[in-house]
Amino acid sequence: MIRFENDYAEGAHPQILQRLVTTNEEQTPGYGMDKHSETARAYIKKAIAAEQADIHFLVGGTQTNTIVISSILRPHQGVVAAHMGHIAVHETGAIEATGHKVLTLPSENGKITAAQVKACYDAHWQDSTHEHMVQPGLVYISHPTENGTTYSKAELTALSEVCRECGLPLFLDGARLGYGLVAQESDLSLAEIAKLCDVFYIGGTKMGALFGEAVVIVNPAYQRDFRYMMKQRGGLLAKGRLLGIQFETLFEEDLYMAISHHAVVMAMLIRQAFIDKGFALRYDSKTNQQFPILPNDMLTALAEKYSFSTWETFDDNYTVVRFCTSWATKKEQVDRLIEDIHQLA
Amino acid sequence: MIRFENDYAEGAHPQILQRLVTTNEEQTPGYGMDKHSETARAYIKKAIAAEQADIHFLVGGTQTNTIVISSILRPHQGVVAAHMGHIAVHETGAIEATGHKVLTLPSENGKITAAQVKACYDAHWQDSTHEHMVQPGLVYISHPTENGTTYSKAELTALSEVCRECGLPLFLDGARLGYGLVAQESDLSLAEIAKLCDVFYIGGTKMGALFGEAVVIVNPAYQRDFRYMMKQRGGLLAKGRLLGIQFETLFEEDLYMAISHHAVVMAMLIRQAFIDKGFALRYDSKTNQQFPILPNDMLTALAEKYSFSTWETFDDNYTVVRFCTSWATKKEQVDRLIEDIHQLA
Amino acid sequence: MIRFENDYAEGAHPQILQRLVTTNEEQTPGYGMDKHSETARAYIKKAIAAEQADIHFLVGGTQTNTIVISSILRPHQGVVAAHMGHIAVHETGAIEATGHKVLTLPSENGKITAAQVKACYDAHWQDSTHEHMVQPGLVYISHPTENGTTYSKAELTALSEVCRECGLPLFLDGARLGYGLVAQESDLSLAEIAKLCDVFYIGGTKMGALFGEAVVIVNPAYQRDFRYMMKQRGGLLAKGRLLGIQFETLFEEDLYMAISHHAVVMAMLIRQAFIDKGFALRYDSKTNQQFPILPNDMLTALAEKYSFSTWETFDDNYTVVRFCTSWATKKEQVDRLIEDIHQLA
Amino acid sequence: MIRFENDYAEGAHPQILQRLVTTNEEQTPGYGMDKHSETARAYIKKAIAAEQADIHFLVGGTQTNTIVISSILRPHQGVVAAHMGHIAVHETGAIEATGHKVLTLPSENGKITAAQVKACYDAHWQDSTHEHMVQPGLVYISHPTENGTTYSKAELTALSEVCRECGLPLFLDGARLGYGLVAQESDLSLAEIAKLCDVFYIGGTKMGALFGEAVVIVNPAYQRDFRYMMKQRGGLLAKGRLLGIQFETLFEEDLYMAISHHAVVMAMLIRQAFIDKGFALRYDSKTNQQFPILPNDMLTALAEKYSFSTWETFDDNYTVVRFCTSWATKKEQVDRLIEDIHQLA
Repeated sequence: MIRFENDYAEGAHPQILQRLVTTNEEQTPGYGMDKHSETARAYIKKAIAAEQADIHFLVGGTQTNTIVISSILRPHQGVVAAHMGHIAVHETGAIEATGHKVLTLPSENGKITAAQVKACYDAHWQDSTHEHMVQPGLVYISHPTENGTTYSKAELTALSEVCRECGLPLFLDGARLGYGLVAQESDLSLAEIAKLCDVFYIGGTKMGALFGEAVVIVNPAYQRDFRYMMKQRGGLLAKGRLLGIQFETLFEEDLYMAISHHAVVMAMLIRQAFIDKGFALRYDSKTNQQFPILPNDMLTALAEKYSFSTWETFDDNYTVVRFCTSWATKKEQVDRLIEDIHQLA
Repeated sequence: MIRFENDYAEGAHPQILQRLVTTNEEQTPGYGMDKHSETARAYIKKAIAAEQADIHFLVGGTQTNTIVISSILRPHQGVVAAHMGHIAVHETGAIEATGHKVLTLPSENGKITAAQVKACYDAHWQDSTHEHMVQPGLVYISHPTENGTTYSKAELTALSEVCRECGLPLFLDGARLGYGLVAQESDLSLAEIAKLCDVFYIGGTKMGALFGEAVVIVNPAYQRDFRYMMKQRGGLLAKGRLLGIQFETLFEEDLYMAISHHAVVMAMLIRQAFIDKGFALRYDSKTNQQFPILPNDMLTALAEKYSFSTWETFDDNYTVVRFCTSWATKKEQVDRLIEDIHQLA
Repeated sequence: MIRFENDYAEGAHPQILQRLVTTNEEQTPGYGMDKHSETARAYIKKAIAAEQADIHFLVGGTQTNTIVISSILRPHQGVVAAHMGHIAVHETGAIEATGHKVLTLPSENGKITAAQVKACYDAHWQDSTHEHMVQPGLVYISHPTENGTTYSKAELTALSEVCRECGLPLFLDGARLGYGLVAQESDLSLAEIAKLCDVFYIGGTKMGALFGEAVVIVNPAYQRDFRYMMKQRGGLLAKGRLLGIQFETLFEEDLYMAISHHAVVMAMLIRQAFIDKGFALRYDSKTNQQFPILPNDMLTALAEKYSFSTWETFDDNYTVVRFCTSWATKKEQVDRLIEDIHQLA
Repeated sequence: MIRFENDYAEGAHPQILQRLVTTNEEQTPGYGMDKHSETARAYIKKAIAAEQADIHFLVGGTQTNTIVISSILRPHQGVVAAHMGHIAVHETGAIEATGHKVLTLPSENGKITAAQVKACYDAHWQDSTHEHMVQPGLVYISHPTENGTTYSKAELTALSEVCRECGLPLFLDGARLGYGLVAQESDLSLAEIAKLCDVFYIGGTKMGALFGEAVVIVNPAYQRDFRYMMKQRGGLLAKGRLLGIQFETLFEEDLYMAISHHAVVMAMLIRQAFIDKGFALRYDSKTNQQFPILPNDMLTALAEKYSFSTWETFDDNYTVVRFCTSWATKKEQVDRLIEDIHQLA
């Protein structure tokens, strides 16, 4: 069985694991105050060209989304997100558990637009009974989205401008950020993201780390006392060095981008194979997740050799499935898959 | 500098790290459904002699306490704990953040008694306005406590009986459980703890793992839907195998007990050295944490070669400090420390 | 200006106010333990034919919804409701503030169906990653709905059956319950509602009381410790007698039904006038709220003499507005309105 | 039975009830936007000499404390209060239910001092692991306290100065504020309280109203969006006029002070009778609550004719009880009680 079902099926990129081994006996202070975490922070600040940013390391995505969002909102405020955004559907109500509503906007592909945010904001304030409704207090996007799609520089700039105009901080979930940065047609750099967002995070778990997400708080207004929030929500790792060491390794040279690049190249090969064979794609993803719409009988054939996830029923005869690549995806596995795609009858 | 300041200053026990390396390329399902987690669960069930228990792996102690406690209490209930219990003072109000008060009982050494719990319960229900007060809903203890002390079998049995009589589930925080199990005078086995408690956890982070705590839900009444709670509070690790692999290694043979034993033997040597030199100990700890009361000028001398934590001011001339041992503590480091203790003037 | 904008524009029905005056000097215990509250509970139990029910009095609707819902759900559960349900949009996220998501179902007229609830429940449990999603834990409906529509006995029975089959308690918001009970075509009695629901409330604020809602907890599973919840959420009124006295007055004889009947008769006259004049109604309401779709220029004319609420924009030329009646609506005011409707050009 | 057990045993002062009757037919907008509420706000602003203050009306004390405190604190912050403060013990964990810890300070008489607050603040920030502890974020006091004691102008000024120095807002719970204002030796006026506090409330429920508390937000930093918080926590009364009318009546002329004065004069007579008879008082209260320490056998005798509350067991033979007065306490009732006190053997 060759696995394409997700991007977290293996352990970590070997360089990361190796670094954990070589540093194992070092004695360091706990809770992220160690020198590896310091170095990792310095590397990331350089990569994002934002010296004033605060950088914190957390263990996973749901934890990160919850801590960031609940640290910013006041009790009567909610977070604006696409209706299929991860925080809206796949985190067991983690945001609501901190007291806040997720205010959802319709979306075809996981993205939301500046115009939608503006309309949502205006609708709230124009309502004479707005005090009876949750006030929009923050905008959440993911890049790439859950559907593999990405924001262009123009789109993110427009979102950022509307957010600033409305006084709404903009938070970008970058659980798979690297894949977005290297995507064909992508014109957004880390430095631009840091300029356009108030807070964002650089995913590790789905990008080759054992685990870990690097939260970047660019806007000083949201930096204060963040470590308290981390501790309160169970996010301050005793051996914080584990996160520092991993991000140090990812950003010391260009490992983060190399991992991203490899996975996306592999994904593009798979994408092309499906297109060549005449299959439609549910979302126009240029990142490491591909969503072909396949006839059900062909799925059965493919499933004998490959694992992938079932995304949604398309109609009686077709199903949307997801193929993921990662640092661990091997060229020969992809070649074999492509060959089998071509032979699907 | 030789470090005795805590039991999480290094990475992991080499066997654990080695196992992470050898399993790294394996492809497994996420979120704790992998075979390593299954195996670890089987090992632990055997060790605790409780086949019906549910076992889940979480990343850290605050996360574990929060998820367990909030999954059990109804909104108007609070958790009873020693006033210096970890959840009462050192988790940034994590329990309150889930809506629940920590109802504290006075304690000299971190332990609470069956009589205290009974009195607290009776006082609540005898008050004619009890509906205006938080209802005791759960009892939290740690073993060993934050102060290194342990419950005897008789004490835990009494607590357990009172809890059952009052309908209060008993939750034991075992962040350092191994050290308690092997402590001199300790007469509590894992199987007995599993019989006497409703929920407890077997700590990994402070016991030689990179991170991780194994929650054991013995009482079926509290097993339902626990994985939802884990996900909602950010505790369902994508690469859940990392936890499974670590606990598999710890419980496959006797590594967990070996680590515990080594650390406690080292601690007892340090303890004896302080006693021999005529220093008092703040708490009568037979586990891996020792709390000598030292003259301030001697502290300065010791601090040149050794790191340890300042616990509390004892009086104008004396301070309580904490020396910790772990799997990583070397006999020769302890010998050197003992020598220096003997030469303190 | 004659006001039809809502059903809470005046104080209380004179009989209620009178009773407050005559009982004013009585000395009673606080917090709902007084004899008026006891009597009111007895009257209501008789009216609903459910001796085993627990009855509590709260001040307002948002408070009631919040306390009931948060007292029933476990942390990972959400409440299923129509997407335009009061708890979903008009309570400033009160439910989320207690940690729970509102799981919304589409609705044309404020009602949800048994089939929708079943499908929602099945979709959750059939999803292999259901632990990553909020679990349906309770079903919330209003009767009449925000849109004036009502459930038939067959519809409520079907909902109730599905709820019981799925283990989902059914909670009916009866802020305007009386108007639903007397509505033409309505075949649901108080006793039937008590049989079909687990919890419901009999609204007072919008039914002629100064304020107050009577919560009826029919299912014993949800009765325990409810007064704690009331106190914790600020709902245990010190002078609880005020609620007791009002509901005692409403249910001593048939005042509650008389008020309901009067308001609905007035509303039906208004409804007929709009229909006669050829205007469409946005919702098919047989209760005290009427939602005609009126040309914008006619609105301006009407607004000179009458107040009513703007409900929603229908199209460029038409607007949906709401006319409400209550105990305080006078026949001659309605007659004048009807006359003016007939003369609209 | 003559009742002295609390100050909320009757309905409302007749003038208030009368005003509710005369205004009953008026039609007003809901949710506190009516002209009576406007007028009441104007009267109060004049009484406190603070035109910039925001004034909101809520129904009860627990609701008010919860809404004010949760609207100010960030998630990792707690509220500092006396250990027997109402929010710490008698509100069923309402503050914790909003996610915040109550950080308690020891107190002999319900009051806390500027020095205590400073020490608490310093202790937090001097701790090297302060991020692991709840951060003090607000100071809560009551005046008079639960024990009938009051702050002097010097004491409140000192508290206010320390709070401002530490950046901690000061919130004064004035559930019985009037009784404090007129207390012998009291040198604090409403205007001074408004200058020294950031937020406070003027109690109605225990001061002759049917119900209601007037929240005064003096510091503009805490004024924003307060009505959202009210709505979310179930505190925005549909018929908000009821609160407006009551406070309008209380502050139109000098009814609030007259009620306060009458109750305190009655209480002072009772106090003197106990002192004359040689009984000690548990707290040195100059307000409407008196706490004599009485022999248990005399209690039984008194209890035949008078109701009062049992406060706490003093020792095997003595009990602390509470006698309360209010607007409804009649001079002849007090005379009869005094006579009976004098005849206690």
